[in-house]
Amino acid sequence: MRTRLTELLGIEFPLVAFSHCRDVVAAVTNAGGFGVLGAVAYSPARLDRELSWIDEQVRGRPYGVDVLLPGRVDAAAADPAARLGEAIPDAHRDFVAHLMRKYDVGRPDIWPPDGGAWAPPTTAAGRAADEAGRRVTAAGAMGLVDVALKHPVRLIASALGPPPPEMVDRARSAGVPVAALVGTVEHARRQVAAGADVVVAQGTEAGGHTGEISTMVLVPQVVDAVAPVPVLAAGGVASGRQMAAAIALGAEGVWCGSVWLTTEEAETPPVVRDKLLAATSLDTVRSRCRTGKPARQLKSAWTEEWDEATESPGPLPMPLQMLLAEPALARVVRAAEAGGEGARDLANYFVGQVVGQMNQVRPAREVVYAIVSEYVEAVARLSRLSG
Amino acid sequence: MRTRLTELLGIEFPLVAFSHCRDVVAAVTNAGGFGVLGAVAYSPARLDRELSWIDEQVRGRPYGVDVLLPGRVDAAAADPAARLGEAIPDAHRDFVAHLMRKYDVGRPDIWPPDGGAWAPPTTAAGRAADEAGRRVTAAGAMGLVDVALKHPVRLIASALGPPPPEMVDRARSAGVPVAALVGTVEHARRQVAAGADVVVAQGTEAGGHTGEISTMVLVPQVVDAVAPVPVLAAGGVASGRQMAAAIALGAEGVWCGSVWLTTEEAETPPVVRDKLLAATSLDTVRSRCRTGKPARQLKSAWTEEWDEATESPGPLPMPLQMLLAEPALARVVRAAEAGGEGARDLANYFVGQVVGQMNQVRPAREVVYAIVSEYVEAVARLSRLSG
Repeated sequence: MRTRLTELLGIEFPLVAFSHCRDVVAAVTNAGGFGVLGAVAYSPARLDRELSWIDEQVRGRPYGVDVLLPGRVDAAAADPAARLGEAIPDAHRDFVAHLMRKYDVGRPDIWPPDGGAWAPPTTAAGRAADEAGRRVTAAGAMGLVDVALKHPVRLIASALGPPPPEMVDRARSAGVPVAALVGTVEHARRQVAAGADVVVAQGTEAGGHTGEISTMVLVPQVVDAVAPVPVLAAGGVASGRQMAAAIALGAEGVWCGSVWLTTEEAETPPVVRDKLLAATSLDTVRSRCRTGKPARQLKSAWTEEWDEATESPGPLPMPLQMLLAEPALARVVRAAEAGGEGARDLANYFVGQVVGQMNQVRPAREVVYAIVSEYVEAVARLSRLSG
Repeated sequence: MRTRLTELLGIEFPLVAFSHCRDVVAAVTNAGGFGVLGAVAYSPARLDRELSWIDEQVRGRPYGVDVLLPGRVDAAAADPAARLGEAIPDAHRDFVAHLMRKYDVGRPDIWPPDGGAWAPPTTAAGRAADEAGRRVTAAGAMGLVDVALKHPVRLIASALGPPPPEMVDRARSAGVPVAALVGTVEHARRQVAAGADVVVAQGTEAGGHTGEISTMVLVPQVVDAVAPVPVLAAGGVASGRQMAAAIALGAEGVWCGSVWLTTEEAETPPVVRDKLLAATSLDTVRSRCRTGKPARQLKSAWTEEWDEATESPGPLPMPLQMLLAEPALARVVRAAEAGGEGARDLANYFVGQVVGQMNQVRPAREVVYAIVSEYVEAVARLSRLSG
């Protein structure tokens, strides 16, 4: 199959796989798709190691890297002297500590034994939290991009806000195209004006940070608005029929994230994986309660408490909510894996409405082949029906 | 183009047009599609007249009728002796009266001059309201179906709950298939068990009563769950590319509603039509504030006041919210047409996210032809890209 995307990325089949797990990235790339590693969870040094591992696995086959660049973050994140942990209000720390007690989870190791739900700034955990929070600023993301560009990446993708001019310049100098994720036509226009070479139009049904407009409605409008810039469709795509639908809408390829979470290669904790396998398409919610920006995820006691409990203080802006939530949710998963029922109720993860289709654990390679083969069938059926 | 749907309905192209306006139904049917008249707004006698008019226009070409059958309604609606207007609490009447004052709309004619926002039961308006409210019960809907079956209709469609056995029996005896609208896989299975011959899988992006799952995600799951029952895709379909996408997902045709609202034939009041033409895909909301059940509609001061104002008493169950809202919103439209700015802010209508694509007024026939021609192009592009 040939589209401008397959030419640009040097691939056989325009199936892009977003994952935080290097094994998934390598497996999809080696199966003829295009893996993109979500880099936001990594320090620059760690990212360098992950990409070196991928380089060894894929031996020249193309892959990419994704960074998170919100248009707006909490002011503390922009101030290199600020201690981000200290910007988290007491009410929020207390609420998380209350949840940990209520659901019998125990306290994350990085919290001070006598105090609230945070990592004290003078500890290693506090410094790591500061650094993690700053990775969603332009300066932090550039650190990751610089590492990526030392590797043979074929795409830099930027989620949330427009890529800063510096990022576009450095990627261009390295001959690497820049992709930008968007949820509205206006954002698509803004991203192209900022220099995006590829637009990923992502519908509300997608997992993770996402807008309100469905893929079916969004993709054709974005295709028309940014032509001739090529568009990848994201959100609701986890099968060959859905991929054929996305291409019918005018996209030149697809960007899938959720479907890899239940592959053999994914590092999804078993307790979360089992919840994903059991969930229906009604079991997700778009909530600010993990990162501070609306992100679709599995409904759980965590989303219910933050979004509905009367004592909830409401989510903090990005990146503070991430800094508050992630250590707590990591502890939740550990407690759930150890058999804690309350912890199991709290555990969740970013996933799209396609979770209702994810009913078995398969190698990522098999998922790629299944999508290719169902895609071919869907196109053949469409041609046949249309005489 | 041939699918089981085109065979079943006796049409050339599996494009079903839902409209409350007989002119749209006739125009689409005469252009080779299949018009379906939404009957819930009509008394049986009025429906009979509308269908006779359609019969004259379409001269044997096929069309259908749609009724609304919620699984659950307010208890008063099931009691033939109850006065529905009296079941509306004072707080709700007062809130609507407050909105009418706040936005300078004036009082609907059917409200008592000295009292709250309702039609007194002893007046003709009160009796008409009682009857309108009962049209969404099984008995009320059967009255409409009986009228429809005296005409050469080729489809009875039922929205919200499963069609009652009586309806399926009478339609079957008349040789007329029954279609049922669904928003989840579970509902689809229930509707087929209740005797539906066709399932309309409707995504959250659709206008009017709608669920939470997007078309992209819902349609393939419903197709697999009810096979070999044919599925129409609804929600997010207003162009040929979107129709091709829907067929790629496994549907055998599409059901479109919103796109007809800005056709020349539609009776959409000009003030509402202009708001639809100006709206983007971000300007809709799924709210209970017009009917008591979640229905996607244009955001307006009406939806904001009901859903966000601290003094809002929250929506009533169906059909009480309809009985309260519809006379008020009819008055709002009259005031808006007369130039009232507050009324213009309140005015809205049921519409899907495709409203962002609806940017010009065209004859319904031209919309059908544009969809057919873009559909053919989209399928050709898909075949070409796939080699």
